[in-house]
Amino acid sequence: MTQKPLVGILMGSDSDLPVMKKALAVLAEMGVACEMDISSAHRLPDKTAEYARTARERGLEVIIAGAGMAAHLAGVIAAHTTLPVIGVPLASGAMNGVDALHATVQMPPGIPVATVAIDGAKNAAYLACEILSIKYPELTDALEKYREETRRTLMEKSAQLRQV
Amino acid sequence: MTQKPLVGILMGSDSDLPVMKKALAVLAEMGVACEMDISSAHRLPDKTAEYARTARERGLEVIIAGAGMAAHLAGVIAAHTTLPVIGVPLASGAMNGVDALHATVQMPPGIPVATVAIDGAKNAAYLACEILSIKYPELTDALEKYREETRRTLMEKSAQLRQV
Amino acid sequence: MTQKPLVGILMGSDSDLPVMKKALAVLAEMGVACEMDISSAHRLPDKTAEYARTARERGLEVIIAGAGMAAHLAGVIAAHTTLPVIGVPLASGAMNGVDALHATVQMPPGIPVATVAIDGAKNAAYLACEILSIKYPELTDALEKYREETRRTLMEKSAQLRQV
Amino acid sequence: MTQKPLVGILMGSDSDLPVMKKALAVLAEMGVACEMDISSAHRLPDKTAEYARTARERGLEVIIAGAGMAAHLAGVIAAHTTLPVIGVPLASGAMNGVDALHATVQMPPGIPVATVAIDGAKNAAYLACEILSIKYPELTDALEKYREETRRTLMEKSAQLRQV
Amino acid sequence: MTQKPLVGILMGSDSDLPVMKKALAVLAEMGVACEMDISSAHRLPDKTAEYARTARERGLEVIIAGAGMAAHLAGVIAAHTTLPVIGVPLASGAMNGVDALHATVQMPPGIPVATVAIDGAKNAAYLACEILSIKYPELTDALEKYREETRRTLMEKSAQLRQV
Amino acid sequence: MTQKPLVGILMGSDSDLPVMKKALAVLAEMGVACEMDISSAHRLPDKTAEYARTARERGLEVIIAGAGMAAHLAGVIAAHTTLPVIGVPLASGAMNGVDALHATVQMPPGIPVATVAIDGAKNAAYLACEILSIKYPELTDALEKYREETRRTLMEKSAQLRQV
Amino acid sequence: MTQKPLVGILMGSDSDLPVMKKALAVLAEMGVACEMDISSAHRLPDKTAEYARTARERGLEVIIAGAGMAAHLAGVIAAHTTLPVIGVPLASGAMNGVDALHATVQMPPGIPVATVAIDGAKNAAYLACEILSIKYPELTDALEKYREETRRTLMEKSAQLRQV
Amino acid sequence: MTQKPLVGILMGSDSDLPVMKKALAVLAEMGVACEMDISSAHRLPDKTAEYARTARERGLEVIIAGAGMAAHLAGVIAAHTTLPVIGVPLASGAMNGVDALHATVQMPPGIPVATVAIDGAKNAAYLACEILSIKYPELTDALEKYREETRRTLMEKSAQLRQV
Repeated sequence: MTQKPLVGILMGSDSDLPVMKKALAVLAEMGVACEMDISSAHRLPDKTAEYARTARERGLEVIIAGAGMAAHLAGVIAAHTTLPVIGVPLASGAMNGVDALHATVQMPPGIPVATVAIDGAKNAAYLACEILSIKYPELTDALEKYREETRRTLMEKSAQLRQV
Repeated sequence: MTQKPLVGILMGSDSDLPVMKKALAVLAEMGVACEMDISSAHRLPDKTAEYARTARERGLEVIIAGAGMAAHLAGVIAAHTTLPVIGVPLASGAMNGVDALHATVQMPPGIPVATVAIDGAKNAAYLACEILSIKYPELTDALEKYREETRRTLMEKSAQLRQV
Repeated sequence: MTQKPLVGILMGSDSDLPVMKKALAVLAEMGVACEMDISSAHRLPDKTAEYARTARERGLEVIIAGAGMAAHLAGVIAAHTTLPVIGVPLASGAMNGVDALHATVQMPPGIPVATVAIDGAKNAAYLACEILSIKYPELTDALEKYREETRRTLMEKSAQLRQV
Repeated sequence: MTQKPLVGILMGSDSDLPVMKKALAVLAEMGVACEMDISSAHRLPDKTAEYARTARERGLEVIIAGAGMAAHLAGVIAAHTTLPVIGVPLASGAMNGVDALHATVQMPPGIPVATVAIDGAKNAAYLACEILSIKYPELTDALEKYREETRRTLMEKSAQLRQV
Repeated sequence: MTQKPLVGILMGSDSDLPVMKKALAVLAEMGVACEMDISSAHRLPDKTAEYARTARERGLEVIIAGAGMAAHLAGVIAAHTTLPVIGVPLASGAMNGVDALHATVQMPPGIPVATVAIDGAKNAAYLACEILSIKYPELTDALEKYREETRRTLMEKSAQLRQV
Repeated sequence: MTQKPLVGILMGSDSDLPVMKKALAVLAEMGVACEMDISSAHRLPDKTAEYARTARERGLEVIIAGAGMAAHLAGVIAAHTTLPVIGVPLASGAMNGVDALHATVQMPPGIPVATVAIDGAKNAAYLACEILSIKYPELTDALEKYREETRRTLMEKSAQLRQV
Repeated sequence: MTQKPLVGILMGSDSDLPVMKKALAVLAEMGVACEMDISSAHRLPDKTAEYARTARERGLEVIIAGAGMAAHLAGVIAAHTTLPVIGVPLASGAMNGVDALHATVQMPPGIPVATVAIDGAKNAAYLACEILSIKYPELTDALEKYREETRRTLMEKSAQLRQV
Repeated sequence: MTQKPLVGILMGSDSDLPVMKKALAVLAEMGVACEMDISSAHRLPDKTAEYARTARERGLEVIIAGAGMAAHLAGVIAAHTTLPVIGVPLASGAMNGVDALHATVQMPPGIPVATVAIDGAKNAAYLACEILSIKYPELTDALEKYREETRRTLMEKSAQLRQV
């Protein structure tokens, strides 16, 4: 893989950072270079469109977009690129992310958004790695290793629990 | 009022026409010139942005936007203009408009969308007239007359029902 | 614009004040004179009707009404005036505003309420300004300036984040 | 009981008649005189307020109010009378009565509405009879007789089913 | 009115007491004698049935039943008496009372439950008073007085707010 | 297994028969004797309680109860027996079974109802067989055979689809 | 009953332990031997399948499976055994268990999961005992004794409340 | 691109075919070789696991899985492969796909499912193409061409509508 960012992580507001930086951590662990930025579908629409429009030529291969409430960010990004876009509905406001889930996942035909769970920034990063793994075989190994570790940790917890 | 369109009615797809043309009918009845167009937040993002960006200078004073599912149209329009934007969540797909309601009404601070009921195209038009009425006094009269007629019709139905 | 209030901010209870005064702050920032009052659709129905009925002649041009639970306030106001009425569903009680959203936005044909997000008092004020801007050009400038500042702030945050 | 109506059945629109006349049928069967009328919280607010305000002095002892969508009718009636008000949320529009349920049942403290099931016009009438039964003992007998018949019918169906 | 309890307040568990005793306070304020008891539809079904079956002969005229989750208490009470039964869905458990609302209000034809808002114990008591007021005129006065006080308090708060 | 019914299938109304008789068909196929009856938690509460109370001594080992809306039948049965009770929430009325699901599954501690999917009468019967299989080994075989057939049928459909 | 575990309690993560160990406590109180383990449908799919496949031959007669979010654990267990499987939807993440409820209860025909309330680990254990009671008569007594104690405790609380 | 299938389309039942074959049509149009199969998470768990486990070595690069109700198929597939898995929640049964949406999208950390709209089989295919486009540049062109056609069609519809 290159040192140039392959994954762009976007969020609609700096208040989304505590959740979205979990995606950054996963990508770092997986050895995937990424960039992180704030851009709002509604407050910075031109920057957002520009970001998406130039993403492929700048070398990005996957975009992760997190937003809350009437979360349009992932959809607007998807409208301006044919790269795969992963949407993370964020739990904010009175509806705790159910609104963002609907606004992210229910995209009309032609412009898909790959939606993960509410606040699922970690899974967005794992999904990005899975997507990249079809091109970069080293990521398949990294993902298998991560899963193997998960299994081992869980097996240990299982053993501990059964002893009690 | 001018003969030039004061209200723009936008919809995301021609399949939205049966509902959205009810807004046209109300505006015609109220004597408000309007224009009607299709433009999708996702499939025609540049046309949509352009439409919104030039709306005020083209003489529009209110924009009505109807869309279904992850309905971003009204929000995207609102991102590109400071004119009042009325959003009509449309009932389509498996969630019957609840998704569109959330995606239309739950806008983050700074970029409001004036949301009406699911499939509420008629009310979008009445709301447009109420907004215009602060500038065009003849619309206050038209609205009062409409309400008066509504009252009379309902009073007649009430009388009929009580006779039975 | 006049010094006389153009916008009336109503709420159903004094417990709604912490949310609703955010609308006041926005209007003050935008230079729009407004008045603020408590009036309940259910506990002060006559005052509420009177308020709405006399609003236009008293010089009001937009009414913002915030209420929680079975939030009827905006609808009752709308029934008594042809001025544009903006409804703010408030998050209170066990349903956290979803009930108020439904009771505010799902208005039947003829009597629209321009609904904003749950607890969206700020957006109610921005929407009021957008409505007034069709008549008072200085508000268009104020709104553009506010958006420009929002953009600049967000661009700075974006720059900071990318540096890290 | 008197021949004068003890129960008023109100609905927001004549389109509500097919459901609401089931309440009439039950009351007729129970021998309770009633009146039926159309009055909308939003389109005929003054008639509605007047209806409620004069209800007790006109001899009504219970009011049944059926409405759909942002169903404010029962709440507005309740705001203008201290008689017991029974609300029937009606299934109309895209949300099929869930909106009307929330708008009817989630009343704030002080102004209760006795809410029955969505489209539960029959139960509204039975509830009205139960309320009246505390004053008119003959209704207790009528209700017991109705329940006894229900039990017998169901016992017969039970017997038939077990034979098969 | 008599000194003998006219209203029975039932709850499914002693953990419901903090909410349900608000009903007691309202009834005391209104001068209505009442009794309060714990009885569970599921854990004490026979006591519950017996309570309901003997309620009318013991002099009760209204029963208020509060329960959470799959709240069957009000429905089970209603199955065993023809007195008016008021159901209070209580907010407990992961669904915060939405389950209890559905389990209380959606009663099948023939056995109505007069449902109030989630945690609406106060309104259950006011509704009980409204029901009793058709028989005990002094309650009409008490209710009017309460409403008058509510109006005055709210008018004072309104005056205070407008001064600021 | 005995020829005496081991499973009782109850439903709240004869209108529930089209769904509930699917449980009967599954049990017949599995060779499990059962009985079927109508009994309503609200309209026949005493018969329902009696049915549950005597179920174990009459030889029943599992009870399946199907009901719609504020579905209390399974819960009321469970209150009167320590046999396993399987609840089938039925899709009827405006909420299409979501109300029945909440009223069936959200039982308070101590009185469980084994809830299956909305309209899941077939699965209620399979679950009954699984429960009985811990005592009657022939049922384990019958269930394995059924699953094997399901697998074969699905494998054939898979083969057909892949050929196309 | 044997000393060998009759009930297996599984959970998807060690973070589920605080809720799931309530099932253990109930089973211990009822004198039912059980085992407890962690196994995830997604992170340890092979262990989970193996666990289910060998459960009956290892002597288990009921499996309790608790999981949150897109809770597949109970369904996956049920796919690999014909033993009765009890699913406990756990309240975790932004949807507070409503997602887990849907993912647990809405199983397709042929593979049932006996679902209890969100976080209903206690009821899962009582249900397990009810199921076992059809084979082990001593459990019928234990369950009756538990219910009797529940009734007595509640009767005492009732007596205390009525004294006040 | 190869002639060997790059995308596997799985569904839980042959009744899902009418929706899922729309994915096939899109992939064909895009020139992406794919295979289609039936495999149920619950009724054919071993085949499903085997399918997922061998997918990458068989040359698949993306898996699309459609299922309804407690839709576990995509999640189970994802548990057995590190390839990107796209989940299509299908509208079936009483909840019309909302259950399937929750069961598909709310995956716990580590095992992501890229979820599209309810019944969004077309978008699943477009998303698959976007994913593949990071490796096969010809797909970027095909996607751009498709979008261009969409734009042209919509522009023509827009022109037609404006003429009227």
